Amino acid sequence: MEIRGYVEEHRERFLSELVEYCRIPSVAAAGTGLEEARGFATEQLERLGATVTPLDVPGARGPAILGALGPASAPRTLLIYNHYDVQPPEPLDEWDSPPFEPTERGGALFGRGVADNKANFLSRAQAVEAWLATRGDLPVRILWLLEGEEEIGSPSLPDVCRQHGHLWSGADGCLWEAGYKDQAGRMVLYSGLKGLAAFELTARCASSDMHSSWATLVPNAAWRLVWALATLKDRDENILIDGLMDAVAPPTPAERRFVEQIPYDDEAFRVAHGVPEFVTGVTGSDALMRHLYQPTCTITGLSSGYSGPDMKTVLPSVAVAKVGFRLVPDLTPELVDEMLRRHLLETGFEDIEVTTLAGERPAPGQVESAVVRSALAAVEDVSGVAPVLWPHMAGTGPMYEVCAQYGIPAVGFGTGYFGSLVHAPNENVRLADYFEGIEVASEFIDRFASITGYRPM
Amino acid sequence: MEIRGYVEEHRERFLSELVEYCRIPSVAAAGTGLEEARGFATEQLERLGATVTPLDVPGARGPAILGALGPASAPRTLLIYNHYDVQPPEPLDEWDSPPFEPTERGGALFGRGVADNKANFLSRAQAVEAWLATRGDLPVRILWLLEGEEEIGSPSLPDVCRQHGHLWSGADGCLWEAGYKDQAGRMVLYSGLKGLAAFELTARCASSDMHSSWATLVPNAAWRLVWALATLKDRDENILIDGLMDAVAPPTPAERRFVEQIPYDDEAFRVAHGVPEFVTGVTGSDALMRHLYQPTCTITGLSSGYSGPDMKTVLPSVAVAKVGFRLVPDLTPELVDEMLRRHLLETGFEDIEVTTLAGERPAPGQVESAVVRSALAAVEDVSGVAPVLWPHMAGTGPMYEVCAQYGIPAVGFGTGYFGSLVHAPNENVRLADYFEGIEVASEFIDRFASITGYRPM
Repeated sequence: MEIRGYVEEHRERFLSELVEYCRIPSVAAAGTGLEEARGFATEQLERLGATVTPLDVPGARGPAILGALGPASAPRTLLIYNHYDVQPPEPLDEWDSPPFEPTERGGALFGRGVADNKANFLSRAQAVEAWLATRGDLPVRILWLLEGEEEIGSPSLPDVCRQHGHLWSGADGCLWEAGYKDQAGRMVLYSGLKGLAAFELTARCASSDMHSSWATLVPNAAWRLVWALATLKDRDENILIDGLMDAVAPPTPAERRFVEQIPYDDEAFRVAHGVPEFVTGVTGSDALMRHLYQPTCTITGLSSGYSGPDMKTVLPSVAVAKVGFRLVPDLTPELVDEMLRRHLLETGFEDIEVTTLAGERPAPGQVESAVVRSALAAVEDVSGVAPVLWPHMAGTGPMYEVCAQYGIPAVGFGTGYFGSLVHAPNENVRLADYFEGIEVASEFIDRFASITGYRPM
Repeated sequence: MEIRGYVEEHRERFLSELVEYCRIPSVAAAGTGLEEARGFATEQLERLGATVTPLDVPGARGPAILGALGPASAPRTLLIYNHYDVQPPEPLDEWDSPPFEPTERGGALFGRGVADNKANFLSRAQAVEAWLATRGDLPVRILWLLEGEEEIGSPSLPDVCRQHGHLWSGADGCLWEAGYKDQAGRMVLYSGLKGLAAFELTARCASSDMHSSWATLVPNAAWRLVWALATLKDRDENILIDGLMDAVAPPTPAERRFVEQIPYDDEAFRVAHGVPEFVTGVTGSDALMRHLYQPTCTITGLSSGYSGPDMKTVLPSVAVAKVGFRLVPDLTPELVDEMLRRHLLETGFEDIEVTTLAGERPAPGQVESAVVRSALAAVEDVSGVAPVLWPHMAGTGPMYEVCAQYGIPAVGFGTGYFGSLVHAPNENVRLADYFEGIEVASEFIDRFASITGYRPM
């Protein structure tokens, strides 16, 4: 309760710090405000007594930093991952208040980056401040990794981890960047992420487009691409690439239990998105199991020939598809890359050019880890509402690079809510969630310091 | 020989008339110069003694006209089809002289529309002039149909034919708009055209694009479209639409003989267009037979999701393909339309929306008709070089509307050559071909007046 009192007492200053941080237009895509935002975060950490180390790597637009605080002799080390960059604010005319003039309205603070990811960073920093002010020394060592390129796909992070990962590779758990509350007011936690492998497939059949009357004789790149794609996945959503599904690990019984506890109204979701039926006709918790534990093979883009109004009698010489795979353990981008190329060779599509666009390994959820159990307990204790645990999220992020490759279990929770409009105009956090988040973070530190079990034992 | 002498004598005026006609920027797509070009053609026909009737239909941008000349009592009637509109001249900076300032260079006249279709019209008109001046009354009745919307797909022509077709439906043969000489100096004739049916296929799976992590559950419009397309034609180029191939009529023995006589270097063609191998591996005269007597099912456009640089993790809610069919007898656009829709229903793709974009019936070649035999004889007689007859062309035009629906056999020949750059910058005709074309047209009229056989008998 001393934490709650401290938060009440410093409410105005805490909020004004958040406003100050959100005023900085640290858009990684545009390369603006990154140094200023990094300076703000560095100063926050240094005020808490942290030693802040720049994690320089060549070519970084938004260099990472590592703050170290708390007793070096503490028995446990908590890694925290946040980012100081934000999404571009466009489209500007859809904002009800300017994106970089944080504005309080109806109990929420509106501004670009407030939910993703500035309120999460700052509520955690203020939790440490409250702890230090009310309870003395931190009970854990904290290593705080902040990067400035998350919103452009963390291009420098693999290099940062390769060169500097030894600085945090021994951490006992990681508090991941963010989290949110659902419509029922339950905080949603997660402990892993899917991976990603993305490719461009190109069919080329002639040196230039020709008149479509030649389709009798001249191969059509669009057809060639369609036939090649049709060998990758069938109408019943079976991925046909040899060996790919063999690498998919089933969920553990514990994961299955957590998934079954996730409240999920698939009918409401389908209505909201205009989807008459989910693929394969799956419903209920089977749908969630599929969502979390199955890989995907997705055409994200198709283009060939003429696509304007009416028609042109053209025989396309080039056709391009973008194909993305969401990866679950034990699929890796390297494995999918190799399997996809071999599949095209073996099915007679050796002429299809494959360009690798992106790759990120999955980070398996660790539902029985100390960091997850500490988070679940802290949330329920502070808010009085049992949280929901997603063993992992269906999205992708650099959790493998930062945590999983070192065997560090991770948990994500934070100060957003279902209406935070992350990446969209009018991004916001509710102030009540924000101040509660400070308490949750503080309680989480307390729990993590004393919990026994997986990894901290 | 009296015709040749007359042409020699009036060479300068004939050429200046062609220059004058080609100065008129009668671009149907832009709606410019159409009235002026129609006026020029009308005046040319009236100078020959023709009665010119406007063939008005509502909404026509470039109204058609019908000139009638020669004795109404002549035993035979020749229909001539030309158009007074031209393609847009763009890209302008690729022209060596301005497109609407006709320029003589290296024995050729350069200008937009000279080959397609102004030199053809005018050489025929000048042939009639030469005949009248040197031989007296025309030996045939001539009905001369000119339209002004050919380069935008002849949108008014079906209405023109419906309302006014009775004016020419009794014609004994038709001289079609154009033709060319090949690299060996042989005039290339043809007597039919393929038809066309074009559609837009649209798959819709959700009310908006979604994050690609939802691909586990939410149907992907791009996949749906790919699977639907893959049911239309297999990798071996077999069109799989039920009943479609049953409607394809085989060539007659006479047509087969003409195709076997067409000189055709498929290796040179493949090298020129960067095509390692024709579809199904076909070569030589088998390739030509396939080109002329097989229908096509061609993807002319594909679009879905994100197609820019790099990637976006998007799950496309909409995917669109444009699909065009080239039709041989006895396929009609109406038949293909019905078969395609039924095919999608029967293969479980009732969700794919089908929009009909265009339809044109094929005009079967009539290789044994009087009009074709007259043309073959006239060309060989005037030029001393045996022509090549393509029973029909692989392209499409309104020959069904104008001729085939009334059972009028047609032949195409004209004053272009392999280097005429039709529809491209630096369009041109060789002047020697042009003046020879006047003689060929005159000789053709003579032959057609006296030949016996199919239709004129």
